[in-house]
Amino acid sequence: MKLYVSSASPYVRKVSIVVREAGLAARIEEVVASVSPVAPNEQVSRDNPLGKLPVLIADDGSAIYDSPVICEYLDSLHSGRKLFPAAGPARWTALKLQALADGLLDAALLARYETALRPERLRWPEWIAGQKLKIADALDALERDVDLLGGDLTIGNLSVACALGYLDFRFADDAWRTGRPKLDAWLAEVSKRESLQATIPKG
Amino acid sequence: MKLYVSSASPYVRKVSIVVREAGLAARIEEVVASVSPVAPNEQVSRDNPLGKLPVLIADDGSAIYDSPVICEYLDSLHSGRKLFPAAGPARWTALKLQALADGLLDAALLARYETALRPERLRWPEWIAGQKLKIADALDALERDVDLLGGDLTIGNLSVACALGYLDFRFADDAWRTGRPKLDAWLAEVSKRESLQATIPKG
Repeated sequence: MKLYVSSASPYVRKVSIVVREAGLAARIEEVVASVSPVAPNEQVSRDNPLGKLPVLIADDGSAIYDSPVICEYLDSLHSGRKLFPAAGPARWTALKLQALADGLLDAALLARYETALRPERLRWPEWIAGQKLKIADALDALERDVDLLGGDLTIGNLSVACALGYLDFRFADDAWRTGRPKLDAWLAEVSKRESLQATIPKG
Repeated sequence: MKLYVSSASPYVRKVSIVVREAGLAARIEEVVASVSPVAPNEQVSRDNPLGKLPVLIADDGSAIYDSPVICEYLDSLHSGRKLFPAAGPARWTALKLQALADGLLDAALLARYETALRPERLRWPEWIAGQKLKIADALDALERDVDLLGGDLTIGNLSVACALGYLDFRFADDAWRTGRPKLDAWLAEVSKRESLQATIPKG
């Protein structure tokens, strides 16, 4: 299989962690690519019309996206403990945590595009404030419900770890740990895993 | 169960179609809500920290989001034909189509926020062009692979119908049907279903 990657993408990191946890690294060839909402990458867009990373090219040549679909597909290819619980409350908790983490990341990316990509004279402070409020509310919910993050690694808690890692990478000045000691302690513990250590974002 | 809705939201429409197809309408109380990236709705944000619609409140009081998770949860509550194929190629095709349709919608919403929400002096033509290119590329891929949309209703093709319906609702001037006759014919046919007729967007 072939996986389009970027070392700065938190959605790619989710997939890279699943690859490692599922023992599939030897079957994946990584292809480094660069994408931007205002500078499309033709190679990526041929396989994913949305022009986003990650994209997985399966062994039959078909392209799979977005990151939740790639992660669930890869999780179906191994016989070890599953990262996607099969059914029932554990599945809904894991999928909802993934949605919360990915939604936090969507807000963080939009805030970053506004400050790192858009020309300065066209920036809208209310837009940035609105996205940062989503991030803060999501972090507060995770601090409150930190017990949901415990236990075995799932697609839910690993997505949260990627979201928090991205905030450390791109929004360190916002100091998300302040007032959220339980979430901070949880991240420190889960980050000891080899799959997380091996995928720390770099730009 | 309680479902936060808005008659203009294409993501809400996906859930509303699943509710009807799954025969669950009698178990759902709809609560109309209004959200915006720059004007948060406190009631919605209490249940979904991302401040987005739809949000489902399950019978045990827990909140479920985003739309793919709500749809899969609702699909688990009935014993009829499933909208989420259980496993194998049919599942990956359906989930990938959902991701393509939802990604088209994400781009359409960002283009709309840029023109309908952001003050005129702060608009960035390259941003709008970038989002519209994603939409055009997604439409071209759907026209090319229109055979994937046929057969029984799934979460994949119903998501595509919602995406196209949203383009008709908000981007009629862009005339997406031009040069895409097979996609046009497919939408006309699938749109005859009662669940789609009952959920046509209005703003």
